[in-house]
Amino acid sequence: MYELGVVYRNIKRADREATDGLAALGSATVHEAMGRVGLLKPYMRPIFPGSQVSGTAVTVLLQPGDNWMMHVAAEQIQPGDIVVAAVTAECTDGYFGDLLATSFQSRGARALIIDAGVRDVKTLKEMNFPVWSKAISSKGTIKATLGSVNIPIVCAGMLVTPGDVIVADDDGVVCVPRAMAAKTLEAAAAREANEGAKREKLASGVLGLDMYKMREPLAQAGLRYID
Amino acid sequence: MYELGVVYRNIKRADREATDGLAALGSATVHEAMGRVGLLKPYMRPIFPGSQVSGTAVTVLLQPGDNWMMHVAAEQIQPGDIVVAAVTAECTDGYFGDLLATSFQSRGARALIIDAGVRDVKTLKEMNFPVWSKAISSKGTIKATLGSVNIPIVCAGMLVTPGDVIVADDDGVVCVPRAMAAKTLEAAAAREANEGAKREKLASGVLGLDMYKMREPLAQAGLRYID
Amino acid sequence: MYELGVVYRNIKRADREATDGLAALGSATVHEAMGRVGLLKPYMRPIFPGSQVSGTAVTVLLQPGDNWMMHVAAEQIQPGDIVVAAVTAECTDGYFGDLLATSFQSRGARALIIDAGVRDVKTLKEMNFPVWSKAISSKGTIKATLGSVNIPIVCAGMLVTPGDVIVADDDGVVCVPRAMAAKTLEAAAAREANEGAKREKLASGVLGLDMYKMREPLAQAGLRYID
Amino acid sequence: MYELGVVYRNIKRADREATDGLAALGSATVHEAMGRVGLLKPYMRPIFPGSQVSGTAVTVLLQPGDNWMMHVAAEQIQPGDIVVAAVTAECTDGYFGDLLATSFQSRGARALIIDAGVRDVKTLKEMNFPVWSKAISSKGTIKATLGSVNIPIVCAGMLVTPGDVIVADDDGVVCVPRAMAAKTLEAAAAREANEGAKREKLASGVLGLDMYKMREPLAQAGLRYID
Amino acid sequence: MYELGVVYRNIKRADREATDGLAALGSATVHEAMGRVGLLKPYMRPIFPGSQVSGTAVTVLLQPGDNWMMHVAAEQIQPGDIVVAAVTAECTDGYFGDLLATSFQSRGARALIIDAGVRDVKTLKEMNFPVWSKAISSKGTIKATLGSVNIPIVCAGMLVTPGDVIVADDDGVVCVPRAMAAKTLEAAAAREANEGAKREKLASGVLGLDMYKMREPLAQAGLRYID
Amino acid sequence: MYELGVVYRNIKRADREATDGLAALGSATVHEAMGRVGLLKPYMRPIFPGSQVSGTAVTVLLQPGDNWMMHVAAEQIQPGDIVVAAVTAECTDGYFGDLLATSFQSRGARALIIDAGVRDVKTLKEMNFPVWSKAISSKGTIKATLGSVNIPIVCAGMLVTPGDVIVADDDGVVCVPRAMAAKTLEAAAAREANEGAKREKLASGVLGLDMYKMREPLAQAGLRYID
Repeated sequence: MYELGVVYRNIKRADREATDGLAALGSATVHEAMGRVGLLKPYMRPIFPGSQVSGTAVTVLLQPGDNWMMHVAAEQIQPGDIVVAAVTAECTDGYFGDLLATSFQSRGARALIIDAGVRDVKTLKEMNFPVWSKAISSKGTIKATLGSVNIPIVCAGMLVTPGDVIVADDDGVVCVPRAMAAKTLEAAAAREANEGAKREKLASGVLGLDMYKMREPLAQAGLRYID
Repeated sequence: MYELGVVYRNIKRADREATDGLAALGSATVHEAMGRVGLLKPYMRPIFPGSQVSGTAVTVLLQPGDNWMMHVAAEQIQPGDIVVAAVTAECTDGYFGDLLATSFQSRGARALIIDAGVRDVKTLKEMNFPVWSKAISSKGTIKATLGSVNIPIVCAGMLVTPGDVIVADDDGVVCVPRAMAAKTLEAAAAREANEGAKREKLASGVLGLDMYKMREPLAQAGLRYID
Repeated sequence: MYELGVVYRNIKRADREATDGLAALGSATVHEAMGRVGLLKPYMRPIFPGSQVSGTAVTVLLQPGDNWMMHVAAEQIQPGDIVVAAVTAECTDGYFGDLLATSFQSRGARALIIDAGVRDVKTLKEMNFPVWSKAISSKGTIKATLGSVNIPIVCAGMLVTPGDVIVADDDGVVCVPRAMAAKTLEAAAAREANEGAKREKLASGVLGLDMYKMREPLAQAGLRYID
Repeated sequence: MYELGVVYRNIKRADREATDGLAALGSATVHEAMGRVGLLKPYMRPIFPGSQVSGTAVTVLLQPGDNWMMHVAAEQIQPGDIVVAAVTAECTDGYFGDLLATSFQSRGARALIIDAGVRDVKTLKEMNFPVWSKAISSKGTIKATLGSVNIPIVCAGMLVTPGDVIVADDDGVVCVPRAMAAKTLEAAAAREANEGAKREKLASGVLGLDMYKMREPLAQAGLRYID
Repeated sequence: MYELGVVYRNIKRADREATDGLAALGSATVHEAMGRVGLLKPYMRPIFPGSQVSGTAVTVLLQPGDNWMMHVAAEQIQPGDIVVAAVTAECTDGYFGDLLATSFQSRGARALIIDAGVRDVKTLKEMNFPVWSKAISSKGTIKATLGSVNIPIVCAGMLVTPGDVIVADDDGVVCVPRAMAAKTLEAAAAREANEGAKREKLASGVLGLDMYKMREPLAQAGLRYID
Repeated sequence: MYELGVVYRNIKRADREATDGLAALGSATVHEAMGRVGLLKPYMRPIFPGSQVSGTAVTVLLQPGDNWMMHVAAEQIQPGDIVVAAVTAECTDGYFGDLLATSFQSRGARALIIDAGVRDVKTLKEMNFPVWSKAISSKGTIKATLGSVNIPIVCAGMLVTPGDVIVADDDGVVCVPRAMAAKTLEAAAAREANEGAKREKLASGVLGLDMYKMREPLAQAGLRYID
């Protein structure tokens, strides 16, 4: 349940260094490092490929077809933030375009994650302002009804609390709770450290069956080979 | 982000009287009384029509294709509870059938709300155990991986905290935060109290335009009548 | 493209007798009689089964999450009308409930066709006020932005002009242009007249292959039987 | 890949007794008894609730918007068959209505499973001819292009070979390969035999945790209880 | 309701200069300039990014799985036209490929808007023939049933009359009624003229809250700031 | 119905030369050459554009959220194969990433076709390992339950038998049965041979109406031109 008509100005942001370090590891590795939780639904797609970012969440709760609170949110952005927006009902309207992107970018925002639509995608790509969204739509919005800024929201099926870390790339969007940023960075980096050696082995033709010692558990599970 | 592998045994349930009083008001009135928030996504549908219930939430986080935690949840049910279940990924499998329903019902559960599938729906109807779900499916599940019981979960796009009030009927499912149960009951009852007189007026042919005094604001907004 | 903020008061309704006569023939037969056009998309479903109606269209263009124009439309209803509502963007909110239904029914409306959501479906069933909709949802709406009444609209993919005939049953919803009502009734009745004899033959075991003389064209198309 | 333009007249049907015995066990139990395979996708829903049937599959491959082969299939129906129909592309048109149902029923067909749409659903219910389909639609079809009858088809994601057993109820539709009918009946009946005792225990308040001896494996998997 | 089997040869096209001028303004600005109407549903996506076009509509009504009328439409194309195609039922088949694109392009067509599927998308990109469609599919079509050319059609939820202006880019597709082309160009250009100054201000750090003077109405609506 | 827990090691692969020759013809031409069958559902999309491949199918049946069998499949890959994967229930999890791709590529696999999700799509693009999938998702999978390798599977609605030819490009994915590879290559090449001349004619302004001699059949079907 959401509190409407409020803006929390003083949120606790996740540790900056841990936040920034998570970008390079990517959403899949971070998701694994957290025990396979934290992922927004996979219908959230980048509006252009190739971006890989992390940042601290400033959250916005929007009303259907109404982007008023996006302007309110802009003021709460600090450098290194990522704006995360949800709507109180399902909506594909274009809540965000090049003007808001200009404003967000000038405030230091690194990206927008929105469970709705955006527009001016060609210009957003030229500005290199990445967005992960549910839809792309020219449909404009009105400015008539209050939502909230910096309350906990559910975005694409995941709870996002202001100050949490967002990691987003071509594979999707992950939310890391503020208190777990450092620990997750460590776990994800450890995972990543192993991958180079594994990749080399697999590239040389070693099978995962042997590298991961799967043959015995597969046999125990009853796998039969038929010639 | 979810904590996995835990069961919280002592949850604070919403006030019983307020909880029970909300059923009669229905999901639409309760949703309005909260300021139009709290609604689970409308793809959540009753498996048979006509039920109208309220209860305190016992929450379950499930793994895809795995209903192990439903059995763990059964032990935490108290009379007057409604079980609310989410899955860590999108899934339509049949997590729940007549045996689990028998167990839940014998523990005093009033309903199941599940963002996945159920089966044995004919028997569930005969047992009068109502379920609101995303799907109906014969597909069974395994019992291999831990989830959690009584942690805050996101079910069909809405945050549900253990002990919150769930109100469900043919129109959908609403979650009322524990602390707001009494206040919401009051507001919803007040709304409802007005409706009888309005209905009578409208039935007699009075127009909403006149009853709600909309003609002036419509004219101010620029509405034009063309003959 | 839509004209916003207007209400056309004097629409030409289809011939009453032809309109009323179409109900008994049903949406499938009427759709065939028109040459297989006029059908609204099949996601439009009745909120309860068993109704079969026809009526003249009063159209409403709504804004997303805003049902203000439904009240404006109520005044334009005449006995024998069916209200047909579209939204300027995709929306599943509950635009219509028992109060509006009471008002519409008291004005003589026979049904509502809405490319969005409705609520209070249990009461609507008790009132026997049939609705064909895209969704059922407790989500309420605001009253802030103008749409229009009695302009041509696109509802569920079909153009509906005020005064057209709507035929709706458990199979779906068909729109018959005003000028074609009488001719369509004639063609549909002729189709229907044939069906009794056909049904009897088929029930007695005669195959459609023989009754429709399909064996030769099938053979010419190259159908091969393999024993 | 499909062979087009052929009708296989002599198919081997599954054992009649085993086929008929599977109806009472229902789709969920049969699906479990086969090792959790054989289920058609859960978007296949009954057009009216309460039917529970089994029968031997006569298969039909249809072209988009063309029901010509349904008439060809009618001739191949024997008492105790269930017609299973797929289309070469996604389609929601109404391929089947009361006339074809009359013909199928007179030939002894018990049901239709179709990965497309049907119409005349009110009459089909009155005739008690059950259908599981993807859609309901008034949209009619033409008779212009050949498909095939009694070739292996993919219906709603599942391979169905002519003569296989189909089991369908309110939970969904399962396909049992012809050669496995007797063995599956045995396994399903054994499963079912156990359920009565379990249900009684659960109804008396025994927990699944104890009845299934889950407490130890849950503890081993690391489940923690927090008071 | 559609008239079938007709080709209107003499359609009135929108003013050429106004039509051509709208391309540079883009679908979002044009949509706003018309009062937020005219947009086709956002599932219509470009098959390759980066195109931005406008043109006068030649409309085609197609039958499911049948592209015969596309060839009939080709003859009606004049330089500066955009072909807009709808189907009488939902269909994702590939109605259009490199050969038809060659023909359309040689006749002077600038783009295709189709509420169905297309194929040969790699070649279409090499030819720089832009298409906005609902799907991409290798599925071919037959040539058996008549539709119509240059009748009013509903494409992706929007009424398109022959001669209307189509504006399409990466944000979506907008239809401007023929009679409103010049006026819309004017309004859209006026909107656009303002944007440069606004963008500069926002880029310099001025907030939309101040630039649009939103602080007072937000306070009046009850927005509360919490530190 | 699927056989679980088995790996067939000796499959008969389609003729290598025919298999390799089909890539250049593309999925649309191959689909037409087979009589418009064999196409996987169009929701199967390439994770990056521009690839055009053919190869012999190694099939994998996966369990929901479990990619164990992908490692088992890796061992069965021979140079020139394409891995085709299906899941026993609908699932969008990311079953496949850069490590498995490294392994598959080192074994000589040309592509993956998977009716589920994949991840590490940026790296897969850099490796030039093409994938056609239903989804992209960071969600990882477990390794707990057996599926099968090299049994006939249904992938995206199409039956794929081990050793069949897969042809995939930006238009979609087609399956050519092993025994039809050579014949299909011949038919597709013949189709293709005609296209150059046709394209030239159409580019010069000749209409398809004339080139395909459609004017007479259109007139016979009743097409009317209205000036």
